[in-house]
Amino acid sequence: MKNPKIPKPTIKRLAMYYRCLENKKSAGMQKTSSKDLADSLHIKASQIRKDLSYFGEFGKRGVGYDIDKLMNSIKTILGLNKKWNVAIVGVGNLGSAIANYTGLEKSGFYIKAAFDKNKNKVGTQISAGILVYDMRDLKKVCKEKNIEIAILTVPSEVAQKVANQLVETGIKGILNFAPISLTLPESISVENVDFTISLKSLTYDIISSNKNLYEIEE
Amino acid sequence: MKNPKIPKPTIKRLAMYYRCLENKKSAGMQKTSSKDLADSLHIKASQIRKDLSYFGEFGKRGVGYDIDKLMNSIKTILGLNKKWNVAIVGVGNLGSAIANYTGLEKSGFYIKAAFDKNKNKVGTQISAGILVYDMRDLKKVCKEKNIEIAILTVPSEVAQKVANQLVETGIKGILNFAPISLTLPESISVENVDFTISLKSLTYDIISSNKNLYEIEE
Repeated sequence: MKNPKIPKPTIKRLAMYYRCLENKKSAGMQKTSSKDLADSLHIKASQIRKDLSYFGEFGKRGVGYDIDKLMNSIKTILGLNKKWNVAIVGVGNLGSAIANYTGLEKSGFYIKAAFDKNKNKVGTQISAGILVYDMRDLKKVCKEKNIEIAILTVPSEVAQKVANQLVETGIKGILNFAPISLTLPESISVENVDFTISLKSLTYDIISSNKNLYEIEE
Repeated sequence: MKNPKIPKPTIKRLAMYYRCLENKKSAGMQKTSSKDLADSLHIKASQIRKDLSYFGEFGKRGVGYDIDKLMNSIKTILGLNKKWNVAIVGVGNLGSAIANYTGLEKSGFYIKAAFDKNKNKVGTQISAGILVYDMRDLKKVCKEKNIEIAILTVPSEVAQKVANQLVETGIKGILNFAPISLTLPESISVENVDFTISLKSLTYDIISSNKNLYEIEE
């Protein structure tokens, strides 16, 4: 199942397929096909079949995919068949926006704590039931609450320093919103979210005449 | 220059290289190499050389890249040698976080207006000098201010409806934060930002033993 040769864009698309399957399931559908998924996601059906082929045979030619079965398989592949304890580190507008995003729990991500160094924020709730703790208690609280993933929404200038502190807590991964490349031990997984990169990719697409770029993503 | 065969991950990496070059320039550097960039970004040097090769010869073997020259080239490729007029559509925590992100103007993205349907927000400032307008004035204000890009931060339930209204304004591209796949005319560029996808990619990485996935991104 854990084939190390799987390209990262495939993993991201699997997450997209999963979300699309959730929508189809909510709409009462039980079966889908690579063509149906392709139409919903504006991706080539051949791409979808190729992505899914990394993990074995999911569907039957001409019969399509059973939505529940495919969702379960993707869930297992992506590690979403467990609950993940998450902390928000940095309670600004962005941290607050993420903490109040209802889609997180649906995906298995449970925010258990938030951290900020601002004394006025410490002790308040970032969202229903989620306390803001003092940064000085980071290690203690993360260990107590068994935090596995940190969502890092602090300013760039302090991001590396805070990331180092996070490593000390024993977390496994960081979703980094600061527009810098963090230097971390091999054992810590990092995923960077930088929407200016997405904006630049958007402007490239706008100035390019050819709109089919999306289809050759790999 | 506008080779339609350029894979999307290459475009995103070009944006990353640009940001890294900015940092190096700020630090007083004038020259860099694929190895130096690779070390800063934790990407293989061969990947960087491959990405840059799509656009012709930038550096000289053994001499490296002139940072200013390489930055200018990437700027032209990505369409960042012009200023882009941007509107924020949906003034919640996320919209506010983005509006106050100082890195935008540095990258050539100028927020000229924000929109919300909440009467209490209309007329306030989302950030210094940026007014919140009524959604009903979307078309009028977007035309007046020559808005080219919309950053869509409205709830999922209304995202498609608002996107349709945005098409009417004559914009060229949408940076979509709503976790749905928008259906839009071919002529409109769309880039989706969904951090739950990034979280799922992170958990995949955490549960996989092999950390070298990042190096085979293409």
